[in-house]
Amino acid sequence: MASPLFDQLKAGTQDIIPEDTLQERLASGEKLRIKLGMDPTAPDLHLGHAVVLSKLKLFQEYGHEVIFLIGDFTARIGDPSGRSKTRPALTAEEIKQNTHTYFDQVSNILDRDAITVRYNSEWLDDMTSADMVHLCSKVTLARLIEREDFATRIDKQQAIAMHELLYPLMQGYDSVALHSDVEIGGTDQTFNLLMGRFLQEQYGQRPQAILTVPILEGLDGVNKMSKSLGNAIGLTEAPHDAFGKLMSISDDLMWRYYALLLNTPEDEIKQMQHAAENGHKHPMELKKAMAHAIVARFWSQESADKAVQQFEQLFQHRDYSNAQQFTVPSDTPNPISIIELLKLVEAVESNAQAKRLIKDGAVKVNGEKVTDMTQQIHIQDGTIIKAGKHKIFQLAV
Amino acid sequence: MASPLFDQLKAGTQDIIPEDTLQERLASGEKLRIKLGMDPTAPDLHLGHAVVLSKLKLFQEYGHEVIFLIGDFTARIGDPSGRSKTRPALTAEEIKQNTHTYFDQVSNILDRDAITVRYNSEWLDDMTSADMVHLCSKVTLARLIEREDFATRIDKQQAIAMHELLYPLMQGYDSVALHSDVEIGGTDQTFNLLMGRFLQEQYGQRPQAILTVPILEGLDGVNKMSKSLGNAIGLTEAPHDAFGKLMSISDDLMWRYYALLLNTPEDEIKQMQHAAENGHKHPMELKKAMAHAIVARFWSQESADKAVQQFEQLFQHRDYSNAQQFTVPSDTPNPISIIELLKLVEAVESNAQAKRLIKDGAVKVNGEKVTDMTQQIHIQDGTIIKAGKHKIFQLAV
Repeated sequence: MASPLFDQLKAGTQDIIPEDTLQERLASGEKLRIKLGMDPTAPDLHLGHAVVLSKLKLFQEYGHEVIFLIGDFTARIGDPSGRSKTRPALTAEEIKQNTHTYFDQVSNILDRDAITVRYNSEWLDDMTSADMVHLCSKVTLARLIEREDFATRIDKQQAIAMHELLYPLMQGYDSVALHSDVEIGGTDQTFNLLMGRFLQEQYGQRPQAILTVPILEGLDGVNKMSKSLGNAIGLTEAPHDAFGKLMSISDDLMWRYYALLLNTPEDEIKQMQHAAENGHKHPMELKKAMAHAIVARFWSQESADKAVQQFEQLFQHRDYSNAQQFTVPSDTPNPISIIELLKLVEAVESNAQAKRLIKDGAVKVNGEKVTDMTQQIHIQDGTIIKAGKHKIFQLAV
Repeated sequence: MASPLFDQLKAGTQDIIPEDTLQERLASGEKLRIKLGMDPTAPDLHLGHAVVLSKLKLFQEYGHEVIFLIGDFTARIGDPSGRSKTRPALTAEEIKQNTHTYFDQVSNILDRDAITVRYNSEWLDDMTSADMVHLCSKVTLARLIEREDFATRIDKQQAIAMHELLYPLMQGYDSVALHSDVEIGGTDQTFNLLMGRFLQEQYGQRPQAILTVPILEGLDGVNKMSKSLGNAIGLTEAPHDAFGKLMSISDDLMWRYYALLLNTPEDEIKQMQHAAENGHKHPMELKKAMAHAIVARFWSQESADKAVQQFEQLFQHRDYSNAQQFTVPSDTPNPISIIELLKLVEAVESNAQAKRLIKDGAVKVNGEKVTDMTQQIHIQDGTIIKAGKHKIFQLAV
């Protein structure tokens, strides 16, 4: 029953429920409808999102229909209880703008023209109160509050407003409206995806299969990748920056990125791990291969080739001809304190970050480590500033 | 601050929340909007309903607007989960019919022309799903499941379907839509009435006061009055039947009926109890006064006077000239068994009831107690049949 697509889908996946249903549908030759729910707020995509997108890419390659379901209904409502400041109501214009930005960011990965875009306001706006009563009648309170975040809040005696309980129902109803065959999401969405499956059955439909992928850790290897935690690689970052950040992750995290971002089968990963332990392969080489493959996959082959070449010149051959050039503005004080200089070239965003780097011994000027926070630097044409492992600047005066 | 109306409203009332609000509004001279929610299913009214109706009568007498809020929205939906067989969906026609029957039954008590009738479908039908989300955002899950029946079911791990949680919200929203000043109901409705009050505040309105009355016990003095328990006095029963049933209640229950159906102040009831204990008044006289006053209040003065007169002739003066005449059909067997005879005159509805009456020594033929279940009776013109305390028939051949 297993197909090449099924095997590729399964690589790096957390759960497929139920596996045989997905296998059967893939084998049937039907064009399947694959749903991805998307919250149209702050669409600043990073490699964490790419885990799901790469699965969708596979579905597209095999001719299935990928549907981006934009949750504009709830986004327009925001949090009417006013309890959550992080969930402001969005205007239709903002939603349109965000969606646009979103698609700009995924267009390197997916065939944008082949994506079907649907808005859940198409059916939720038209729902009457009687329709809502019917929808609510399909599910028990006990089932709804099994959702982990609800259960936790009940345990902690934190308030849950009633409308919050409606959202997973409406989100699940989207699957009914779309007649989706497969829904895909992060493991944190498992409950909602299963709710879609359940409601399709309640409405007399063939229930969707669900496919969940693990949540990708950020560069720190600890927390979920997130822009606000500063551990993310944005999909719109320059490919050589992405490459540099990928080269900075730990060896342990590298295996995780192989699995989740490249869907490398477990066997192959084990072989690489073995080779690294035995000294047959240097971990740096494996990491370079990973970074190259990820940039090739989510940016382009060309930019990946270029990034790896630059990297080798800069850090392995110490050839600074390809270092980032920075022209010092004429009104810059000279000498300048090391902290101000790091901020000037945008190697850091704050004094605190600069101090941390210096303290870690990660700042060098013309190859000499800077240890004094107050050190004054004499700027000259060609001065080389290294800040952290993978950022090198050459100053031009 | 207290007004004559307030004192009368308070007599026999369980709770007024908050008392000072109601007092202030009554004192303001405003024409108040008094809401009574009504479920348009099986409208077979009895004296249990009269407790609330008599409070509404008071409001009417003082010129306030009594609003019957008919819950047709939910009645038309029924129980969409199909879990409850006792809550079938009603058609608009059935609802109209039931409402009509309902008003026929209350017209002896209230000024029917002065009643405002509203249907909650007027606003609930027009509610969108977004309106429902807003409504739900006003209340927490914790607050909703405080309602006793929900709390009990959660304790017993019985399922609660999500739509059941919507109903108290929609019912409460009716108060918002009506801008009601006072809502009235049985103590079993306290939660829902408070929800109306709460939601009015949430929607920026002046919140209603609520007034709850105790649930009236039936003729058995134990269970809630209910047609299905056979312990009820229907509002459409013949007044002399109602009088007879009222005369059959226990002395203990009599005080309760004085309080709830006649709103007799506690002081007066204590005086009567004292008089009965001291032998200054015979309990039978107090009961006759109660039965007379209740029939006068909920039927008419004239029928009450007539009922008390008939009762005295029949049971106290043993004058059977006013006994119920029953013409025996010509094809009736003669002699006839006592059980068949009791059924023939419709003194009982079943063999079992007939046997119970005979066993209790409550059946007499021409003044002689019948003790043999199989006794054959020779029917003659003028034969007197007594069945139970207050039913006497005179046969005509």
